Amino acid sequence: MSRYLDLANTLGSRIERGLYGAGVRLPSVRTLSLEYGVSLTTVQQAYRWLEMAGLVEARPRSGWYVPAARPAPELPKMGKPDLRPTDVSEWGQVQELLDLESESGTIQLGRGMPDVESPTLRPLQAALAREGRRAGIASLHYNDMQGVAALRQQLSRLAVEAGYHVAPDSLIVTTGCQEALSCAVRILCAPGDIVAIASPSYHGMMQILKESGVQVFEIPSDPLQGISLEALELALDRWPVKAIQVTPNASNPLGYTMPEHRRLGLIRLAQRFDVPIIEDDINGDLAYGWPRPHALKALDEDGRVLLCSSFSKTLAPGLRVGWMAPGRYFDKALRMKYTGSGPTAALPQIAVAEFLQKGHYPAHLRRMRRQYQRQRDIMTEWVRRYFPEGTRIGHPQGGFTLWIELPESFDTHALDPMLKENGIAIAHGNIFSATGKYRNCMRLSHASVFTPRTEWAVRRIGEAVGEILHSTC
Amino acid sequence: MSRYLDLANTLGSRIERGLYGAGVRLPSVRTLSLEYGVSLTTVQQAYRWLEMAGLVEARPRSGWYVPAARPAPELPKMGKPDLRPTDVSEWGQVQELLDLESESGTIQLGRGMPDVESPTLRPLQAALAREGRRAGIASLHYNDMQGVAALRQQLSRLAVEAGYHVAPDSLIVTTGCQEALSCAVRILCAPGDIVAIASPSYHGMMQILKESGVQVFEIPSDPLQGISLEALELALDRWPVKAIQVTPNASNPLGYTMPEHRRLGLIRLAQRFDVPIIEDDINGDLAYGWPRPHALKALDEDGRVLLCSSFSKTLAPGLRVGWMAPGRYFDKALRMKYTGSGPTAALPQIAVAEFLQKGHYPAHLRRMRRQYQRQRDIMTEWVRRYFPEGTRIGHPQGGFTLWIELPESFDTHALDPMLKENGIAIAHGNIFSATGKYRNCMRLSHASVFTPRTEWAVRRIGEAVGEILHSTC
Repeated sequence: MSRYLDLANTLGSRIERGLYGAGVRLPSVRTLSLEYGVSLTTVQQAYRWLEMAGLVEARPRSGWYVPAARPAPELPKMGKPDLRPTDVSEWGQVQELLDLESESGTIQLGRGMPDVESPTLRPLQAALAREGRRAGIASLHYNDMQGVAALRQQLSRLAVEAGYHVAPDSLIVTTGCQEALSCAVRILCAPGDIVAIASPSYHGMMQILKESGVQVFEIPSDPLQGISLEALELALDRWPVKAIQVTPNASNPLGYTMPEHRRLGLIRLAQRFDVPIIEDDINGDLAYGWPRPHALKALDEDGRVLLCSSFSKTLAPGLRVGWMAPGRYFDKALRMKYTGSGPTAALPQIAVAEFLQKGHYPAHLRRMRRQYQRQRDIMTEWVRRYFPEGTRIGHPQGGFTLWIELPESFDTHALDPMLKENGIAIAHGNIFSATGKYRNCMRLSHASVFTPRTEWAVRRIGEAVGEILHSTC
Repeated sequence: MSRYLDLANTLGSRIERGLYGAGVRLPSVRTLSLEYGVSLTTVQQAYRWLEMAGLVEARPRSGWYVPAARPAPELPKMGKPDLRPTDVSEWGQVQELLDLESESGTIQLGRGMPDVESPTLRPLQAALAREGRRAGIASLHYNDMQGVAALRQQLSRLAVEAGYHVAPDSLIVTTGCQEALSCAVRILCAPGDIVAIASPSYHGMMQILKESGVQVFEIPSDPLQGISLEALELALDRWPVKAIQVTPNASNPLGYTMPEHRRLGLIRLAQRFDVPIIEDDINGDLAYGWPRPHALKALDEDGRVLLCSSFSKTLAPGLRVGWMAPGRYFDKALRMKYTGSGPTAALPQIAVAEFLQKGHYPAHLRRMRRQYQRQRDIMTEWVRRYFPEGTRIGHPQGGFTLWIELPESFDTHALDPMLKENGIAIAHGNIFSATGKYRNCMRLSHASVFTPRTEWAVRRIGEAVGEILHSTC
C-alpha cells in the first residue's frame, strides 16, 4: 500500500503546485511505471487515489488528465467576537460522543482517533512485547513522578525539531495530553477566573475549563490563520484574562497552522498583558508540511508558554503517554502531577522511548502525514460532491479532522435519527464551543484508511443534510 | 523461601495465641521436619526468623523456647483535637521524600513501596509480556474512559470479598489510587471548603487537599481503633464539613483496622450530618487477618461512600492501575476522570485483568501478607532493641509501614545529616499532617525482604536517636 501512496503523493503535490496545468495529459501509466520502478498496478492505484481526491480525471481510451480548474470550496466563516466571558455549557453531548466511541459496528467519523493499524507501528508493538518481558519487574518498580528518564531524553530531542530547547529534567511525562492540559489550567486559574481560548476548540479542553469552574472567553479563529489577534487584544484589554489557550499547529477541529507573523503577534500580546499561554501541540508532528512547523514555544522568551502534547494522535491513544514543558511553572506542574494522579504508567513509556530511540518515529510520521493529507483531499471531494451547495469546508494543514459548516439555520442534531439508524457517528459542532455555538457545523475524521463504506457514510450524511434543508424551505 | 515462611507463620501465630506458654520448650527441629515434611534447614530457618521477631529464643544445646512474657511495646499516643480547620503546610519535604525514592544505593525505609520481587508476581510479568505481544494493537486502540471491561468485571468480584456489591458499570478505573482520591476531593469540595481527615494520614492525600485549596480538620486517631468519633462529631457539629476522609483498613501510616462498631458509628455520623465519606481502601487486601476486613463501603446504604483503591500496594505501583466505586457520585466522577487525564493506559489494565482472572491474586496476597506481618514483628523487635526507652511503636494490622513515636521534644529532622551520610531514607512524621504535627515521629517501611543491612539501618537510626536525646539532656 505504501508505494502507491508515495507516488500519489508525489503526483498530487506536483498538480497542486501547478506543474501540470488544467487539461494537460498526465504521464502514462507505463511511463511512470518505468520512471519510478513500480508495477503498472501501483501506478493505476495511485491515479485512482488521485481521482478520488478530484485531482485527476480519466478519459476513456486516452489516459489521465488534470481536470479543469475549479474554485476551491469556500472556507468556514470566522465567528463574531463575544462581548463577555461565559460559563462552559453542559457535558451531556460530549458524553454521548464518548459513549459512541465504544460502540462497535459504527462507522466512526466522529472520534479524534488516529489510524493505529499502520505497519509502521509494528516496532512499537514489538517494543511493548519485549519490554513487557524484559522490563516487567523494572516497570513494576518504576515510579518516577517526572516520567521515565529514557523517554524524557527522547522528548528533549523531539523538542529540537519543534524549534525549542528543553532539558529532560524540565519535562514532565503525563497521562496523555489531557492530563497536561488539565494541570496547566489548574496551575494558572482559580474558579471564576477567565481564560481566552481560540474558537472552535477541542471539546476536552472545554470540559477541563468547565470542571475548573473557569469562565471562557471564546476568540473567533480564521480557518487558515487561527485565533483573531484583534479580538484577543480587545479581550485582554477589557478583562482580567488569566491564560490564553491556543493550538497553533494543525488545530483541532479547524486544522489551521498559524503563520509566523501571527505567532509573533500572539507572543507579543501575551508579553504585553503578562498572560501565560497554554499551547496544545498534540498535532504538531502531524502537520503536512516538512520540516514540521515550530511550536509556539520556540518563540517563548520568558517561560510563559506551557506546552502540552502527547503521542495519542501520532502513535496511539491507548498508550496514554503525554508530556508537558511547563516553562517557569515547572514546580507547580510537578506538584499538580503528583496530587492529580501520581506517576504515569511505566511500561508504555519505556516502549515508546525504545520506538523513538531506534528511529522508527520519522518513518511512521511520514506515512501517517501522507495518508491523512491524501484522505483530507478525498473527503473534501466527497463533501463537495454529496453535500448541498453552500456547504463550507475547512482546509486543514495537518491532523485528520475536517470541519464542515452548513447554512446557519441548520442544526446538525437534526441528523441524529438518521445517524443512529445507519450506524454513523460524527462529532457535532456545538461540543467545540463553550456556549453551544457551531450547531450548524460538524467535524469528520479522515484518519482510518478509507473503504467504500466511508464514502457511503459521507454520501449518506450529505444527502440527509440536503433532504432536511429542502424540507424546511 | 516460601516454605520456611509458611512454617514460621504457623508457629508464630500459635505462640501469639498462647498455645505455647512462656518458658515452654518448642518442638525439636527433627520433629517439625517430620511433621511438616520439610527439610531440617527449612525448620531451622523458620526458627531463626521467629527468633529475629523475638517470638522464640535459642538455648545452647537444648533447643528453642518461648521467651519469658514481656509487656508489649507502648503504642503511639492519640493527639489532641484541633480547635479549627487549617490550611495544609508546605510541599517541600514531600518532594524530598519523592526525590530520595529515585536515589539508588539508598536503604529505602521511607517509601510506601511494596516488595515487587516476589515470585508470585511472575504470572503478572508473563501477562504483561503476552498482552504486549498479543493485545498490542488492541491496547493501542483501547480508550474506554471507564477502563477495560475485563478488569472492571474482576474488580466487581473483588468487591464481593470486601463486602460490597458494585456492578462493573459502576466502577471507574483510575491512574492509581491517587487519581481516584484526587477526583473524589474535587467532586466534593470547592476551594475554602473543609474536609475532616483522620490524623496522621497519607501525605499524598494532604497534598491533594492543599492543591484543591481545601481546609483540613485533622481528627486524632487511636493507633488501634482509628479516627476518634467523639472528635469527629464535635467537628461535624461546629463546622460545615464537606467530606470525611478515612482509611479504615490497615491505615497508612498507623496501620489500624477500625473495629466494626466504630465503622457503624462513623457511617451513622456521616448520615446524621449528611456528609459523604472518601474511603481509601488501598491496603484492604493486605490486612493480615483472613478473610479480609470489609470495606467501609459495605455499610454504605445511600451511596455516600466514595471508595478509592489501587493495585499499587498489592501488586506494583508502576502499573498505575487504580479504581473508584463512587456511589451516587458516579456521573461527576466519570466527568472528572475525563477532564483530569482521560482514559487510563490499557495494557497494564489488560495484564492485571488476566492475572486476576487466572486466579493468581489470592496466592500472591497470602504470601505478601505473611511476609509483611512477620517483618512487622521483626522490625518491632529491632526498634525495641535499638531505640531508646520511651519509644512508642504502632502495631499495624496490615500493610507494611511501622509508625514510631519518640519523646515529644525530639525532632526527627535532627537525624537528617546522619541519614544522608549513611544512605538511609525514612519518612518524617510531619509529612503525615496538614500542620507539621508528628515531628517526633517517623514511618519505617517493612516491605522488602530484610537483609543484614536492614537491621544495620534500623540499629543506626535507633542509636542516633539515643545519641541526640542524650546530648540534649
